[in-house]
Amino acid sequence: MIPLSPTDRSTVRRGVNRARTDRADLYAVLDAGLICHLGVTVDGAPRVLPTCYGRDGDTLYLHGSTGAASLREGGAGAQVSVAVTLLDGIVYGRSVFHHSVNYRSAVIHGHATPLTDAEAKLAGLRAVTDQLSPGSWTYAREPTRKELAATAVLSLDLTESSVKIRSGPPVDEDEDVEAGTTWAGVLPLHQHWSAPEPCPLLPADLATPPHVTARHRDQP
Amino acid sequence: MIPLSPTDRSTVRRGVNRARTDRADLYAVLDAGLICHLGVTVDGAPRVLPTCYGRDGDTLYLHGSTGAASLREGGAGAQVSVAVTLLDGIVYGRSVFHHSVNYRSAVIHGHATPLTDAEAKLAGLRAVTDQLSPGSWTYAREPTRKELAATAVLSLDLTESSVKIRSGPPVDEDEDVEAGTTWAGVLPLHQHWSAPEPCPLLPADLATPPHVTARHRDQP
Repeated sequence: MIPLSPTDRSTVRRGVNRARTDRADLYAVLDAGLICHLGVTVDGAPRVLPTCYGRDGDTLYLHGSTGAASLREGGAGAQVSVAVTLLDGIVYGRSVFHHSVNYRSAVIHGHATPLTDAEAKLAGLRAVTDQLSPGSWTYAREPTRKELAATAVLSLDLTESSVKIRSGPPVDEDEDVEAGTTWAGVLPLHQHWSAPEPCPLLPADLATPPHVTARHRDQP
Repeated sequence: MIPLSPTDRSTVRRGVNRARTDRADLYAVLDAGLICHLGVTVDGAPRVLPTCYGRDGDTLYLHGSTGAASLREGGAGAQVSVAVTLLDGIVYGRSVFHHSVNYRSAVIHGHATPLTDAEAKLAGLRAVTDQLSPGSWTYAREPTRKELAATAVLSLDLTESSVKIRSGPPVDEDEDVEAGTTWAGVLPLHQHWSAPEPCPLLPADLATPPHVTARHRDQP
């Protein structure tokens, strides 16, 4: 497995002890996320927008229904930055200074390529769908030619990436720990699915399919 | 209340029916979030990083312990873009094309100002702390002069902002709804605090303080 590339901008300078260099850590963060934040430069100024994504091997696919203008700006081989962040908890230190968060974070830099070939777009859209709603690609109606044409999909190589992970209790000053007067610890944060809400226009006897019920039932 | 500014880049073009123009909607999204994604331009390329933030009136404060280099780059009055996104659920359409997400999203554009005055930095840091861990500012030890000097805080005016919110069931093609053969609906997503995990170095008899227990107990 190729380690994460040590280019200048993908080298972690702050919190070096939180940096990971194993590509498996990158995959794990990306595979656990649901949305990403895409950064592009428009007229010399940064623009950040949330959007959906999916991964296939070392390629990240970005969905273009949000921020289509930004995707066009970033599209023609322009540089983009993509961040996927999972917040795992609030770290309560004994001092305000040592308050922190537990998180898993991946940041990717690269040139985004807008997909034009129908087969390539379909593959990218499938990766995005599999990330957002596993099982939907084979269950729901596939895109028509017209729908596919109306969907922008970008691909981005994962070569230049960095991963940072913080976990565990606060790291406080020795004096504050020894004083023993202030509570410190972690309040863990989780994502939780509640029961599926059927569309009001469905026939009354149409059962919720297994790929949706299982996601709700089998959550951590 | 001043409405959100209709500048070119803060005018929503995609999903116009999802755009909100009331400043109260902006405040509600920002006040409900825990982390933001900060976009800066470094050597002409975009860079996106997650960080903590807080709001006081129409000023957003950004914490600088992560991405300090990027904050320096973006710091000297440089343009930044900040996004706060809350994911509320996965929208399962009858077609892949009409799969979507329910979300609340705020994007702010502006010039970030690095705070240098100690009082201003303290006020900014308090806003960030109040956002991340309400109650900690008065409970935990306040920053020393040295700690304050080691903390970067940026301020950003909220004038140029946009808000988008999607909620409710999928919006499908009439033919797909009429066919009545494919399940569609929403799988709602929530954030959930689990029980506080005390630091292993705490005295055994030190109780978890009310601002932490209440956050766990009173969650939605």
